[in-house]
Amino acid sequence: MGARNSFEGSLTDLKNTLLKMSGLVERVLDDAIRSLVQGDLELAESVIADDEKINDLEHQIENESIHLIATQQPVAKDLRKLVSAIKIASELERMGDLSVDIAKTTIRLKGEQLIKPLVDIPRMAGIAQQMVRESIDSYVMEDVEKAREMAELDNQVDALFSKVVRELHILAAEDVKKVDQTVPLAFVARYIERIGDHATNIGESVIYLVTGQKPELNH
Amino acid sequence: MGARNSFEGSLTDLKNTLLKMSGLVERVLDDAIRSLVQGDLELAESVIADDEKINDLEHQIENESIHLIATQQPVAKDLRKLVSAIKIASELERMGDLSVDIAKTTIRLKGEQLIKPLVDIPRMAGIAQQMVRESIDSYVMEDVEKAREMAELDNQVDALFSKVVRELHILAAEDVKKVDQTVPLAFVARYIERIGDHATNIGESVIYLVTGQKPELNH
Repeated sequence: MGARNSFEGSLTDLKNTLLKMSGLVERVLDDAIRSLVQGDLELAESVIADDEKINDLEHQIENESIHLIATQQPVAKDLRKLVSAIKIASELERMGDLSVDIAKTTIRLKGEQLIKPLVDIPRMAGIAQQMVRESIDSYVMEDVEKAREMAELDNQVDALFSKVVRELHILAAEDVKKVDQTVPLAFVARYIERIGDHATNIGESVIYLVTGQKPELNH
Repeated sequence: MGARNSFEGSLTDLKNTLLKMSGLVERVLDDAIRSLVQGDLELAESVIADDEKINDLEHQIENESIHLIATQQPVAKDLRKLVSAIKIASELERMGDLSVDIAKTTIRLKGEQLIKPLVDIPRMAGIAQQMVRESIDSYVMEDVEKAREMAELDNQVDALFSKVVRELHILAAEDVKKVDQTVPLAFVARYIERIGDHATNIGESVIYLVTGQKPELNH
């Protein structure tokens, strides 16, 4: 294999590692939300343990990308591909951290009965997961249109965030004993909202990769 | 000037840009907290405007570092310096975003009388500012000991965070009308706590830069 082919092969490896990493992030987010809804402390602990794997994948992607930049001296789009890989891995790592924050909330609430069935929090998380998946698809396919469509979903996440916080306010105002759960659950909604922001950042990286322009997608 | 000297010169420029960026982050954090305490909507708007400058400095540091990696093919510590610069700029940029989140809380509360004088929130922010300053000092001086000492301050920030959230709970439980401020102010405490985490991440980058090892400082 010539140097060019081996460079292309390295880029394919990087894409596959990013796909693996994003799949893991989707799963830990799902696990974190289920741990909260079901009061499952063991599942919450597994999210915290899995975060190590996500961190390792980030280091792997970063090291490989930097190594390729230093040894292959890529320019233009090839260089942007590597810079984007580093940035996307960093966004995914933050999403893993936020999932850990959700799992820690499960543990802090010690499996106590939740003040409401949290319908909108799992819904928010479902849309955030879809954003993670589509953001990485848009990277793999280098599809600017898909990246933009994905970022539109963030409006739904933001609207649900406001709705959840409003509802938590009302519940706390109705019954003062519920205040103990209001703040942690509002934090969870915020963590999911942040995950949507990180997916939007990935969309921005995809547009930069394809066009060389740094756009500001709506946040 | 030979290639080596010009590389050293570029590294010095990078350090100076990082210093400028961290100075700006310290200032916007201070402005954001003052805007909240004083209900100063104009100051809050200035924080949001200044965030653009912080974002521009991040792009500048990232572009320059990537350019140097690609053209100078640095190895070992020189390479780590550039990777660290990219990572530190990214941490500082997140701190800027969190300061904007605080400023947006000021705007959301529309200058209304705060439910308490917020003594501990400015105190948390003061320590976070100190962490930002010392983290960048430890980078400039490549001082591992200083980085570790700075990270220790994060325990104080975390302790104050828990205290503030507990106090907000009590206030909300005492008077249901205060619930409207409880969640936004708990968020502000959380944002400052995150800024401490980002400073700790900078400390980790400094240790990596000097030693080549990736430590996990206490979070």
